[in-house]
Amino acid sequence: MPRPRTAPDHPDSPARAIAIAMAGALRRRGYHGAALNDVVAESGAPRGSLYHHFPEGKDAIGAAAVRLVGVGVTRALAPRGSVAPGGREAIGVIASQLSEWLQRSGFDEGCPVVGAAMGLGPETPLTREACAEAFGAWTDALAAVYREGGVEASRAVPLARLSIAALEGAVGLCRAQRSIEPMRQVAAELGALLDGAHARRAAPPASPSSPSSPSSTAPTAPTAPSAARRPRRAR
Amino acid sequence: MPRPRTAPDHPDSPARAIAIAMAGALRRRGYHGAALNDVVAESGAPRGSLYHHFPEGKDAIGAAAVRLVGVGVTRALAPRGSVAPGGREAIGVIASQLSEWLQRSGFDEGCPVVGAAMGLGPETPLTREACAEAFGAWTDALAAVYREGGVEASRAVPLARLSIAALEGAVGLCRAQRSIEPMRQVAAELGALLDGAHARRAAPPASPSSPSSPSSTAPTAPTAPSAARRPRRAR
Repeated sequence: MPRPRTAPDHPDSPARAIAIAMAGALRRRGYHGAALNDVVAESGAPRGSLYHHFPEGKDAIGAAAVRLVGVGVTRALAPRGSVAPGGREAIGVIASQLSEWLQRSGFDEGCPVVGAAMGLGPETPLTREACAEAFGAWTDALAAVYREGGVEASRAVPLARLSIAALEGAVGLCRAQRSIEPMRQVAAELGALLDGAHARRAAPPASPSSPSSPSSTAPTAPTAPSAARRPRRAR
Repeated sequence: MPRPRTAPDHPDSPARAIAIAMAGALRRRGYHGAALNDVVAESGAPRGSLYHHFPEGKDAIGAAAVRLVGVGVTRALAPRGSVAPGGREAIGVIASQLSEWLQRSGFDEGCPVVGAAMGLGPETPLTREACAEAFGAWTDALAAVYREGGVEASRAVPLARLSIAALEGAVGLCRAQRSIEPMRQVAAELGALLDGAHARRAAPPASPSSPSSPSSTAPTAPTAPSAARRPRRAR
């Protein structure tokens, strides 16, 4: 599958400016509401640079925007220096970013990744791939935080996926209700759920077992496919 | 706030046909990707009937579509005859409807309500109101099911809101990953969470208390505003 010719990594690159402007459009109105003329105007890049950097067009710009946001959130979930975030802190990282977008805009902007995802179709293979990468990387990063915090390995990915889905879905509830309350409540519920998962590990049922052994089987939740993927965090 | 002049309740009404077609467009590409020409063509209604039934235009059509779907899901969550659904069954009702839309379309269609919600803005006050109504009614209906299944009153609304957010967010993950696995996993996690909420009520902590007394305070989750709204179910 083709990738954008120029990865918008350089801080001053027109490609990056276009991707940032596209992320704003995705937050406001989703993929199909994003007008390329407006995106280019907002980016300050000359119109020609759009086709130079993104010869595949809108789908490639959507992918670059989603990738930029996806990587940013994934980095925020990784430990800074030697300080690894706890599970509640990691949930807070995502909830805070989403809340900032929502509140700063008076609830007229949400998350660019789920905004793009709700309009995916045959015409958006690159954006779809970038959305899958972002959701996968967030799930892996959050699962790694959960595991390091003491959640059983077999429970970490399902809980992480539930967390990502709930936080992204809460964006829709917040926009509809013009209130940050659903996001606050969902984050609090996920935090309580996580505390419960910790408690169950800290206080295992009657039969004695080594607390340091990696968990193997959990009856309620099979290990998901993405559990086999390695998180990108170097630890 | 103005309402559509004609509520699309009658099965044969052009207004209803237009709302159904709009719901399909919202599922595929969200509010801003919905083209009214395509919606009218798909509905089979004459172009003039669009402006007759929806003088407020696209926003009113979006509201009618969201309301139609919202009411349908709310009804499915209410007991049929004397048989009330259990908590897992109610989660399954929503997950099954979302899964049907996803799988029938090869993951190119999601939920019209969250699809609309991710594009809400100053130009969509009627659609926003309809989205808020749908999310609120689903939360209330699910919370009622949870309470009747034995979840403490103070826990029912937060758990219901988490459930709605997670199931709607899972739509985005499924579309991005072109897989029903996130929806399946999120529904399973919510079911396990619900079983845990039942178990905690069935086996309260040390101090004796009447199991039939309505619960009052829960330290981890404050009662949400919508807890004060009465569910529409007549019981």
